[in-house]
Amino acid sequence: MQKGKASILFDNPVYIAGMASVAGKKEGEGPIGGSIDVVEQDPMFGTENWEQAESAMQKQAADLALEKAGIHRKDVRYLFAGDLLGQLIATSFGTVDLEIPLFGLYGACSTMGEAISLGAMCVDAGHADKVLSLASSHYATAEKQFRFPLGYGNQRPQSATWTVTGCGAVVLSKDKSCPGTLTPAIRVKGITTGKMVDMGTKDSMNMGAAMAPSAWDTISQNFKDFGIDSSYYDKIITGDLGQVGRKVLLDFMKHEGCDLTEKHMDCGLTIYDNHLQDTHSGGSGCGCAAVTLCAHILPMMQAKKWKRVLFVPTGALLSTVSYNEGQSIPGIAHGVILERCDGQETEAKGGAAR
Amino acid sequence: MQKGKASILFDNPVYIAGMASVAGKKEGEGPIGGSIDVVEQDPMFGTENWEQAESAMQKQAADLALEKAGIHRKDVRYLFAGDLLGQLIATSFGTVDLEIPLFGLYGACSTMGEAISLGAMCVDAGHADKVLSLASSHYATAEKQFRFPLGYGNQRPQSATWTVTGCGAVVLSKDKSCPGTLTPAIRVKGITTGKMVDMGTKDSMNMGAAMAPSAWDTISQNFKDFGIDSSYYDKIITGDLGQVGRKVLLDFMKHEGCDLTEKHMDCGLTIYDNHLQDTHSGGSGCGCAAVTLCAHILPMMQAKKWKRVLFVPTGALLSTVSYNEGQSIPGIAHGVILERCDGQETEAKGGAAR
Repeated sequence: MQKGKASILFDNPVYIAGMASVAGKKEGEGPIGGSIDVVEQDPMFGTENWEQAESAMQKQAADLALEKAGIHRKDVRYLFAGDLLGQLIATSFGTVDLEIPLFGLYGACSTMGEAISLGAMCVDAGHADKVLSLASSHYATAEKQFRFPLGYGNQRPQSATWTVTGCGAVVLSKDKSCPGTLTPAIRVKGITTGKMVDMGTKDSMNMGAAMAPSAWDTISQNFKDFGIDSSYYDKIITGDLGQVGRKVLLDFMKHEGCDLTEKHMDCGLTIYDNHLQDTHSGGSGCGCAAVTLCAHILPMMQAKKWKRVLFVPTGALLSTVSYNEGQSIPGIAHGVILERCDGQETEAKGGAAR
Repeated sequence: MQKGKASILFDNPVYIAGMASVAGKKEGEGPIGGSIDVVEQDPMFGTENWEQAESAMQKQAADLALEKAGIHRKDVRYLFAGDLLGQLIATSFGTVDLEIPLFGLYGACSTMGEAISLGAMCVDAGHADKVLSLASSHYATAEKQFRFPLGYGNQRPQSATWTVTGCGAVVLSKDKSCPGTLTPAIRVKGITTGKMVDMGTKDSMNMGAAMAPSAWDTISQNFKDFGIDSSYYDKIITGDLGQVGRKVLLDFMKHEGCDLTEKHMDCGLTIYDNHLQDTHSGGSGCGCAAVTLCAHILPMMQAKKWKRVLFVPTGALLSTVSYNEGQSIPGIAHGVILERCDGQETEAKGGAAR
């Protein structure tokens, strides 16, 4: 059911039937490291170069998500996947062996939100019974592509973020037939799709500030489209705003009379301990939101800490070319409403948002 | 309705409510140049650099498609768009002013197939009444990114293709309420979504050979999923296989007992006159299939030359990084079934493929 300008409330249940997270050593040493399914000590993941490493990580996460769901590759109708690299090469080579029809996505660090949104739309519509949504990033492939050769040991300002080496993957299903379906069940209840927001920020070492306006735009749109306010959610969780971007978001929301200080969480401030791990403003990359979702957010919902979450991965749309040409950095944020189903009432078809 | 392993037959009509093509001088001088809506003589499109030029072209095509459909930006619920550039910067900057919720896509030169597939799924499901699907490429941005600086005047082998400077955009609608709805009506009847196909081709100057196996895979899958053969279509139209790729595809199909010699058409061999325009194996790029669709294929269907077409844009998934690391070039192809509605029978909801 279309809601407002940019949102959908799904008429049919879309359950999370499996989830998996694979990440690197640094992420394994962070606050949620103990909950990551696979922590790989070798940044090369046993391959010859970083790009292949990221592909290997994607494949591992995809296969593990299917295994945990208790299904096979052939049971999955569509794959929605993306990464940060030019021409999505981590995804191209990471998913070729899966032999699943693929929709390649690019939403920068918002990609996990985009992948779950499209995957859930597909399941809700009956276009697929089961889909797989995933997104990845790798510290070394991202630094190589966007910034400086690692060998330079380049210094970075405190506003810069640290790209997460990680991949998160979820299986979405129309029913609870998968043996691995989360219990209690968690469903994707609705989505709010972001639009490009460009406020003229140009500092590529401060992507939190570039993305915060888009997070504000999507969260505000979500409230408006569903006729709700922040009290509807137990947590509102952005992707990788970091310390700087979080401050901007909270300021923007406060101007609208909404204090999100307690309710807001940022995956970039969750996956690392910024002080102990020297990650400056926080974590970033498609893998940041994707891994935190699978290793922390969904488990917290299962543990009955939170019932209803607005998950809002955020992306900064820049490339070295656009940066060198003096362009600004537009942002985009894709919102996904996740809800734990405790009783029959919340699992009923359709129903109003409240 | 799900059909077979990778296809959907839409239960509800998805009409083409508007279409627009914008392209460069060379494309304007080609065989279908007279049918391109806007032929821009300035390769810079009045901007400061090639990337901005591609963005300007996207914006122009999007606005023109809306104008021809007779609707406004605010009437469009979702935008499905992509281009060839790293981090989709042509799309990011080209669509920011539209202020439409965006799903950024990367399928290399298959992107127009991916954008129409997801857009039609969205409309069929009732998730949107109207969406806009578009894809672009620009000769100079692509050469700069994938090959050599233009100033080198580098020679290329005969198997190489010429990236089209162009953007095609279509408005998809659930009904015929848009003033610009094509008459006779043309609907997106179904789709067959491609998977990655890697046969080990490594020659980046022969992308037709790299993509042909994926075109073969998607076309064969389409026949299998719908229980049909080539006689179901008046034309089967690939994106940018060029002369080399077409030969490979016809050979592959012949091995399955299917002679596509007459029925097959390739956009890359349609948009340029290879001999007069010195474009070697043919045209390529997201814009190749997108412009040919809007300037030639849909008009030919309207002119009652063809009733039913399988449109199969093809993409080669490589980047300079993957190429330099010695990786192969996997391909992907997304199939879209287009059908002219001459009578009530073909417009009826649902119904079998035959």
